[in-house]
Amino acid sequence: MPHAPDQLLLQLLAIFVSAKVAGELFERVRLPSVLGEILAGIALGPFAMDWINPSDTIHSVAEIGAIFVLFSAGLETSPQDLIRVGRKALVVAVAGVVVPFILGFAYMKWLGDATSEAIFVGAAMVATSVGITARVLGDLRVLATRTAKIILGAAVFDDILGMVLLAVVAGLASGGRLEWIHLGVLVVEAAAFAVFMIFVAPHIVRRIQPGMDRLSTQHAPLIVALALCLFLSWLSAKIGMAAIIGAFFAGLMFADYAPGWNLLPRVGGITEFLAPFFFFTIGSRLNLHLFAGNVLYAAIVISFLAIVSKVVGCGLPLWREGRLSALQVGVGMMPRGEVALIVALVGLRSQIVLPSTYAIVVFMTAVTTILAPPLLRYLFRGEMNAM
Amino acid sequence: MPHAPDQLLLQLLAIFVSAKVAGELFERVRLPSVLGEILAGIALGPFAMDWINPSDTIHSVAEIGAIFVLFSAGLETSPQDLIRVGRKALVVAVAGVVVPFILGFAYMKWLGDATSEAIFVGAAMVATSVGITARVLGDLRVLATRTAKIILGAAVFDDILGMVLLAVVAGLASGGRLEWIHLGVLVVEAAAFAVFMIFVAPHIVRRIQPGMDRLSTQHAPLIVALALCLFLSWLSAKIGMAAIIGAFFAGLMFADYAPGWNLLPRVGGITEFLAPFFFFTIGSRLNLHLFAGNVLYAAIVISFLAIVSKVVGCGLPLWREGRLSALQVGVGMMPRGEVALIVALVGLRSQIVLPSTYAIVVFMTAVTTILAPPLLRYLFRGEMNAM
Repeated sequence: MPHAPDQLLLQLLAIFVSAKVAGELFERVRLPSVLGEILAGIALGPFAMDWINPSDTIHSVAEIGAIFVLFSAGLETSPQDLIRVGRKALVVAVAGVVVPFILGFAYMKWLGDATSEAIFVGAAMVATSVGITARVLGDLRVLATRTAKIILGAAVFDDILGMVLLAVVAGLASGGRLEWIHLGVLVVEAAAFAVFMIFVAPHIVRRIQPGMDRLSTQHAPLIVALALCLFLSWLSAKIGMAAIIGAFFAGLMFADYAPGWNLLPRVGGITEFLAPFFFFTIGSRLNLHLFAGNVLYAAIVISFLAIVSKVVGCGLPLWREGRLSALQVGVGMMPRGEVALIVALVGLRSQIVLPSTYAIVVFMTAVTTILAPPLLRYLFRGEMNAM
Repeated sequence: MPHAPDQLLLQLLAIFVSAKVAGELFERVRLPSVLGEILAGIALGPFAMDWINPSDTIHSVAEIGAIFVLFSAGLETSPQDLIRVGRKALVVAVAGVVVPFILGFAYMKWLGDATSEAIFVGAAMVATSVGITARVLGDLRVLATRTAKIILGAAVFDDILGMVLLAVVAGLASGGRLEWIHLGVLVVEAAAFAVFMIFVAPHIVRRIQPGMDRLSTQHAPLIVALALCLFLSWLSAKIGMAAIIGAFFAGLMFADYAPGWNLLPRVGGITEFLAPFFFFTIGSRLNLHLFAGNVLYAAIVISFLAIVSKVVGCGLPLWREGRLSALQVGVGMMPRGEVALIVALVGLRSQIVLPSTYAIVVFMTAVTTILAPPLLRYLFRGEMNAM
């Protein structure tokens, strides 16, 4: 046994409670609770107070937690809506992927970093956090506005584009160096996987639905969904992409059936329990002492570029609809979240990026996530009063 | 990192799917799915086919799974019902604890085993599996009969008595040898804990209920319940009892509020995901090669004693109500389950009992659980037709 049972339980207890308490405090000042959970990890982790040094088992639990965070996100994303959503959202998404990636990549190269390092930072700047965006817009009660719909549609698309980029990044991580043919294969693989999962997989679920009700096992749909989540996560990791890509698509596959099969509360319960370990360990891996001199400077510049690139990249396609709409969409696309953190973690763990690069990405994620809610509240003040 | 991510995922996938498939097959022939999950572990584990050798991380996940199995069981057990249930159920429970314990203890001593070994076997024979019993009676649609109510009430009581005994056993495991003063302290400790959790703790929950709704965190009741589950599990382990005792009582504490706070589906989701790892590893630790000669003989005798002692011990208090009622209650109390397996596991892991003793207990659990459903179906055939 790697642990006495009470040691494992003590770490589970300490991490769960500290993350949730910090999350509650952040919610009270209207900041996303995710930030509080990460901050708990930074504060109590080995690089600061050193009260909790997560064991290998906790890191494994955190990995399973990341899978459930993305599985839940997929479950709440209807593939129908994705297919139906206007060209506008797709244009916003693509521009919001290309501009941040190029700016991030170019700045890191200009600093003299390795190409792989620059690709990691660029990839981490790509994906808007659907979770945080949807939560803030929902809190403001402006989800019904046109700009909110464009923001959400585009956020989902750029999550998928971010995942494809993550596949490339994960391929880099396992391959170790940048081979363009290998890269091309991975992009095609990831794109084919995405197209299959969005257009074909939901039909498979519709086909097996009648058989599901004949199974004797209680909770058969939940069990089949969990098994497919584990299978697609493993498959993604196996073919050189990140496991969470499979988890997200597994969620997407069941999204239309989630209400009928009552999947959301039950998968949500698992995510509620496991996610804090993921976000806490994100923080606990962050060495605060790295934020000095050049690294702090680079972190600030990258954060600035992350904001500007989304506001410009996502706002520009909407410029003709008025400056306010363009700004609303641009700022709405600003917060980065799980995907950025996972990109950074993949890089750190495979030792492709330096701890300082990891620190820069976590810093950028925190800054964009902290700034977005108050800015959105300001930009949507007209709609809030009107409704 | 202890694992490459895809190795961890592969074990999670293989164990989850094989356990659930075996469970489904067992349900189809009307046997409890738990048995299928254990059998998958025996068959695929290192002592048989050796396809899956659970890693340390999987064993830790299994431990968390055991905690959630008991937390869920507690959530479904109303403390009000426990307090209100007739003296009859309590008498049945006590007789059903004393007789099996004495028979098991005496037989093992007579075989020449150590006192600690004999106590472990006796303790493992004590607790009726509420889960299996309730499931079978529910499937037969006889839950409304008087005998069914006595069976369920008594099963819950003897689970608690079993937990107290488990506390003693766990104390033995941590102390290493049998000290009577230490034992007395543990019994008092466990009894005080049980009384506090049944009579006082639910009132605490009622007190904090209004505050819960003021919390900003979504899912606040679920989070508080999970935190208390982890805390009480850790506390139980810390004061020398088994962690699952705390988990069971944590569930009991929230049982009355579980429907209002919608806790059951969400905690149930976690249990559904984690429990298979627990039952699979139960099986994977079982060395089938031990079942030869004396051990097989002892396993058969212990299984026989486990059946007879419950039928006689629990049936006797009902003898004056007719032979059928007595037999129904006796057979209804027969199946052992999680608690027996956990007692055995505590003993095996702390190296207080031999692998052969562990094998005997797992064998006994399987035999009693396999025999109960068809016997109950036969004994309740009158009520089934009448309803």
